[in-house]
Amino acid sequence: MADHPPQSVSGTAENDTATITKAAADTATPAPAPTDVAVPARDGRGLQIAIVLYPGMTALDAIGPYEALRLVPGSEIRLVSNEVGPIITDSGVLALGATHTFAETPTPDVVLVPGSATDTPTAMANKELTGWLAAVHPHTKWTTSVCSGALILAAAGILPGHPATTHWFAQKPMALLGVESRPTERIVRSGKILTAAGVSAGIDAALWLIGEIYGTERAEIIQLLIEYDPQPPYDAGHPSKASAKVMGKAVAEMTRDSANVRSTVAIGTVAWQLALTKIRGRKRH
Amino acid sequence: MADHPPQSVSGTAENDTATITKAAADTATPAPAPTDVAVPARDGRGLQIAIVLYPGMTALDAIGPYEALRLVPGSEIRLVSNEVGPIITDSGVLALGATHTFAETPTPDVVLVPGSATDTPTAMANKELTGWLAAVHPHTKWTTSVCSGALILAAAGILPGHPATTHWFAQKPMALLGVESRPTERIVRSGKILTAAGVSAGIDAALWLIGEIYGTERAEIIQLLIEYDPQPPYDAGHPSKASAKVMGKAVAEMTRDSANVRSTVAIGTVAWQLALTKIRGRKRH
Repeated sequence: MADHPPQSVSGTAENDTATITKAAADTATPAPAPTDVAVPARDGRGLQIAIVLYPGMTALDAIGPYEALRLVPGSEIRLVSNEVGPIITDSGVLALGATHTFAETPTPDVVLVPGSATDTPTAMANKELTGWLAAVHPHTKWTTSVCSGALILAAAGILPGHPATTHWFAQKPMALLGVESRPTERIVRSGKILTAAGVSAGIDAALWLIGEIYGTERAEIIQLLIEYDPQPPYDAGHPSKASAKVMGKAVAEMTRDSANVRSTVAIGTVAWQLALTKIRGRKRH
Repeated sequence: MADHPPQSVSGTAENDTATITKAAADTATPAPAPTDVAVPARDGRGLQIAIVLYPGMTALDAIGPYEALRLVPGSEIRLVSNEVGPIITDSGVLALGATHTFAETPTPDVVLVPGSATDTPTAMANKELTGWLAAVHPHTKWTTSVCSGALILAAAGILPGHPATTHWFAQKPMALLGVESRPTERIVRSGKILTAAGVSAGIDAALWLIGEIYGTERAEIIQLLIEYDPQPPYDAGHPSKASAKVMGKAVAEMTRDSANVRSTVAIGTVAWQLALTKIRGRKRH
């Protein structure tokens, strides 16, 4: 890990688990190297990066990381879904094109699952999606999520037992799924699982991941290419910073957007599946 | 302008021109109100927002602002292009769906033009695109660009004579087109024209614009909804911050990506058009 990117990593009891926070290059110290997990090869050329698309997804969750990851020389980006073709996002207006089916992509090196403002439960109940995630995860170099994509990783059985982050609105549901919620962290790494907070956090996560796989210089080149030098004109990007009034209205809008017929049906399906999984997991005495 | 969002605005000789820099909400003072330009109505509900798509565009240039603008209640987002259907972006992998043609969208309230790593000259030579921009601009409330989209606004005759910003790689070409380059600024406003620096700067610009049109509270709600609380793991997002080695490699990659046959042909076309425009503009003595 000699070429470890500049960041501070606050370790936990397991040293394959780390919470990553911002650190300036000149003040950071190298993170302790995980010793009990497989460390992805530094020469990540030729890696196949599968970005999951599904109906109702939030576009920026995927396109932020995509725009950074696509700039890695020699990597292959695939936009994977149940079927090839247009996937309508949660705005109902923007379509993104899926290039490959899940079945066509049995061995991706990196998997990224975006979240949704409207259809996270629908995606959690999508057996083709969660079945594919469960099947490919043991073989990936990195399995990653952005925003409420973490709940989909949880539904696939990948995340329970791990610390993780997600959109602030989804931290409690994620914890109910057996995941250790880290609501104050923008990026959480647990072994080869990397989860990012809401929507735009995927950009930070992708740059971190690029540094981890391809080294600091490549991450910095890509940061410069996408001119990621953020200067938000407001400072309300996290519940700890927003006013109570802004927070209240944001919660009301998230609640409204996520409460649709598709989600209502899907939540029932997911709850049934989780209950049955517990029942089927019981040992005879 | 009583509800002006919190930001610092450094005025210039013309008071309809301002360079916008980051400022924490608690330290900012209200900007002086422009007096000689039309100020967009505060109640921006029902605004039609046209995001331009074209082959070879950079996806995040459009999708960053889209993800913020789509969260404005009551606004209509259109993804406009020469034709309806899939538009292949500069990665050659990701397609975005155009929902409306330019002809179908004669009176947008807000126009946003993304840049491209490969095809900015191609878009500058696209007469259907630049002709549409020139035709709708006099009637817009805001005309905006992200990244090298500024060069396309320049090719449409909208930007020359104005201060503006663009991707660091495109600042010199933009200046050659008669635009006052502001290479150190992430967002520049000149009257109703708003230009943003490279790629991810579109997110900052969109939040600023939402604050300007819809007020501070709406901008803060949207910042919270997309959890735009950036914590980049590196600090190389601007030429002033990147190392010489990282800068050199980034320039080499930008040069390589932008030097394709399409651009070579288009640059000739654009140069011809600019020369002829100058010749045709000559007065008899």
